[in-house]
Amino acid sequence: MIVLILNAGSSSLKYQVYNMTNESVLAKGLVERIGMDSSIVTHKSTGFEEVREVSEILDHVTAVRRVIDMLTNREYGVLKNINEIQAVGHRVVHGGEVFKESVLVTDAVKLEIRKLFDLAPLHNPAHMMGIVAVDSNLPNVPQVVVFDTAFHQTMDNVAYLYPIPTVLYRRHKVRRYGFHGTSHAYVSVHAAEHLQKPLEDLKMITCHIGNGASCTAIVGGKSVDTSMGMTPLEGLMMGTRSGDIDPAIVPYVMNKEELTMNEVNSMLNKHSGMLAISGNSSDMREITEAMQEGDKNAQLAFDMYVYRLVKYIGSYAAAMNGLDVLVFTAGVGENSAVVRKAVCEAITFFGIELDEQANAVRSGDIREISTANSKVKVLVVPTNEELLIARDTFRIVNELK
Amino acid sequence: MIVLILNAGSSSLKYQVYNMTNESVLAKGLVERIGMDSSIVTHKSTGFEEVREVSEILDHVTAVRRVIDMLTNREYGVLKNINEIQAVGHRVVHGGEVFKESVLVTDAVKLEIRKLFDLAPLHNPAHMMGIVAVDSNLPNVPQVVVFDTAFHQTMDNVAYLYPIPTVLYRRHKVRRYGFHGTSHAYVSVHAAEHLQKPLEDLKMITCHIGNGASCTAIVGGKSVDTSMGMTPLEGLMMGTRSGDIDPAIVPYVMNKEELTMNEVNSMLNKHSGMLAISGNSSDMREITEAMQEGDKNAQLAFDMYVYRLVKYIGSYAAAMNGLDVLVFTAGVGENSAVVRKAVCEAITFFGIELDEQANAVRSGDIREISTANSKVKVLVVPTNEELLIARDTFRIVNELK
Repeated sequence: MIVLILNAGSSSLKYQVYNMTNESVLAKGLVERIGMDSSIVTHKSTGFEEVREVSEILDHVTAVRRVIDMLTNREYGVLKNINEIQAVGHRVVHGGEVFKESVLVTDAVKLEIRKLFDLAPLHNPAHMMGIVAVDSNLPNVPQVVVFDTAFHQTMDNVAYLYPIPTVLYRRHKVRRYGFHGTSHAYVSVHAAEHLQKPLEDLKMITCHIGNGASCTAIVGGKSVDTSMGMTPLEGLMMGTRSGDIDPAIVPYVMNKEELTMNEVNSMLNKHSGMLAISGNSSDMREITEAMQEGDKNAQLAFDMYVYRLVKYIGSYAAAMNGLDVLVFTAGVGENSAVVRKAVCEAITFFGIELDEQANAVRSGDIREISTANSKVKVLVVPTNEELLIARDTFRIVNELK
Repeated sequence: MIVLILNAGSSSLKYQVYNMTNESVLAKGLVERIGMDSSIVTHKSTGFEEVREVSEILDHVTAVRRVIDMLTNREYGVLKNINEIQAVGHRVVHGGEVFKESVLVTDAVKLEIRKLFDLAPLHNPAHMMGIVAVDSNLPNVPQVVVFDTAFHQTMDNVAYLYPIPTVLYRRHKVRRYGFHGTSHAYVSVHAAEHLQKPLEDLKMITCHIGNGASCTAIVGGKSVDTSMGMTPLEGLMMGTRSGDIDPAIVPYVMNKEELTMNEVNSMLNKHSGMLAISGNSSDMREITEAMQEGDKNAQLAFDMYVYRLVKYIGSYAAAMNGLDVLVFTAGVGENSAVVRKAVCEAITFFGIELDEQANAVRSGDIREISTANSKVKVLVVPTNEELLIARDTFRIVNELK
């Protein structure tokens, strides 16, 4: 089965085409600047050179049509014709409390996703545009939605409720949802496989640290707590997001700097985190380089980033009353040996012993970076959210038959 | 030396009189409803019955005069005359970054406390009224100010800075200060003494859990991190305060419920925490009773309270890379065996073994509640902030001579 995976943003569309017979990627690409004058499509068919096209793409319907054109292009296309696409899978950020797993798109499902626009005003409306665009271009192809929040729906109310008036939960659904669920789920399964241990027996902390960052406490394969909250702002220090702060800072700063609600949101989401402290960059590679050249602000940003991650690892170890496996994934987690080293060396008393040589190796493979004696196993697991979306899509569409 | 200790609120004045020769309390009391029509003074001289008087007390100057009247009362007074008071010590909530220890009140000190009104608008102006009231009633008596924040001034910038634009720190002093410092300092010293171990060698977490609640990571007697932040709102779940929440909830709720900045502050400080979740009470005794009678909301409030405390203990153990001593203090910490049991049983993997019998004993004394085998020593240490204020006051005024 050929499956098309879409991640629709408000002005962008990321895509990937899988042949599910062998889970191979046939093509992938990105449409940018949708709705603006010169939209850009960057397309790469496996085995071909990358193609880059600039044209006018005014909406997501046109964007999906352009993607199909490129997939069926005579020269570099990977499909003979449009009918080869047998399923489409969408990444959807917010599934609220309704969606506890991936589902087939129906009218009822679309309605529920619309109801969640309020909770994810930047993301869910864009995802819906993607779904509608597929409806119009591929009217008979079944679609599946895979939610960033679904994996965390196993959390207990003790972990997901906030200690604020309960009317806010009942009336406005204010609670912890957590995000990056697809990634946390994917790496936890692969970590257990790699260790050849039953997932059911493991207490695991997965650190998905990329531009956004969250960590999750996983007991027996189920998310029991996660650092992102009602929105992806809470939790760890990130590239441009603050993560946890004293909530009283919000009204204090709004008052002092005469900021509106949107401005304070934008400040905390786009102008905080590593960027704010380093004064220069939100990119861990750049921060690390500057730090190694003696830049004190970069060093401070790095130290705060690590310190806050270390505290979350400690808090989740306590929440689970134990820790068997620590997993690093996503951009920083997979590539920054310096961050992994700093984190592991800060919490040796948990029974973590880093294998420095193994940690220093650059690789795209799943690998153990703790010593044989380490009580807690530390792993680097490359994440692959698209593959998990493709698998869920394949499974659900297959069940229809 | 006779020392008068004052804790001035906006409409209240708590006081205590110490004879520092033997650190005995000669009298204590509380003036309430200052500035309202019928103010109440509740006074207790040691060895006498409690006295309760209702009269008109329109300001703090009059309140201090009434306190002096009662202290020198012919019948139940503990002082022969006003001149016996040789020093006055004030509790001051916010010392900002300026005050790293207790100091003698001078004009310069008053100016600095005024500069901090912004950071503690509910507290510092009231404390200043207390200082001015003593100036006017006891013009020649030296005064000392003891700050809730001072003990935490040893924190590193990695722990005290927030990952938000640094201009907010430079311009508006937005950073973590921490509170309850006098109590955390007091119980850490006494815990080490009780264990007959040098404080310098210990990694300790002190949980000051009363109406307000905070915990502090203490390495070698120095605060390295603490759960309250720029304000006392951050951190643990408390009686009526939320503690940590997704900061994005603040603008979200302001928007949804059309709340002003003051209203959202009041919601998070006065109508959240245990009160919000239990729907009934902010008092741990009442919550525990209701829970034991099967009240599900009370149970949820209790579980969330414990869970959030457990996570902080884990995060600070990680921050210190170890834990030798866990201390419980203040109302809940000293009196709720149920809370202590729930916390300790949740984190046995740290090497905590609770002595259930010792934990169940009700006592006003410092005591160990972990077993002899417990790797981490767990102690209940009754706090006494007034005594520490009296000691600092005595020491500083003595040095003047």
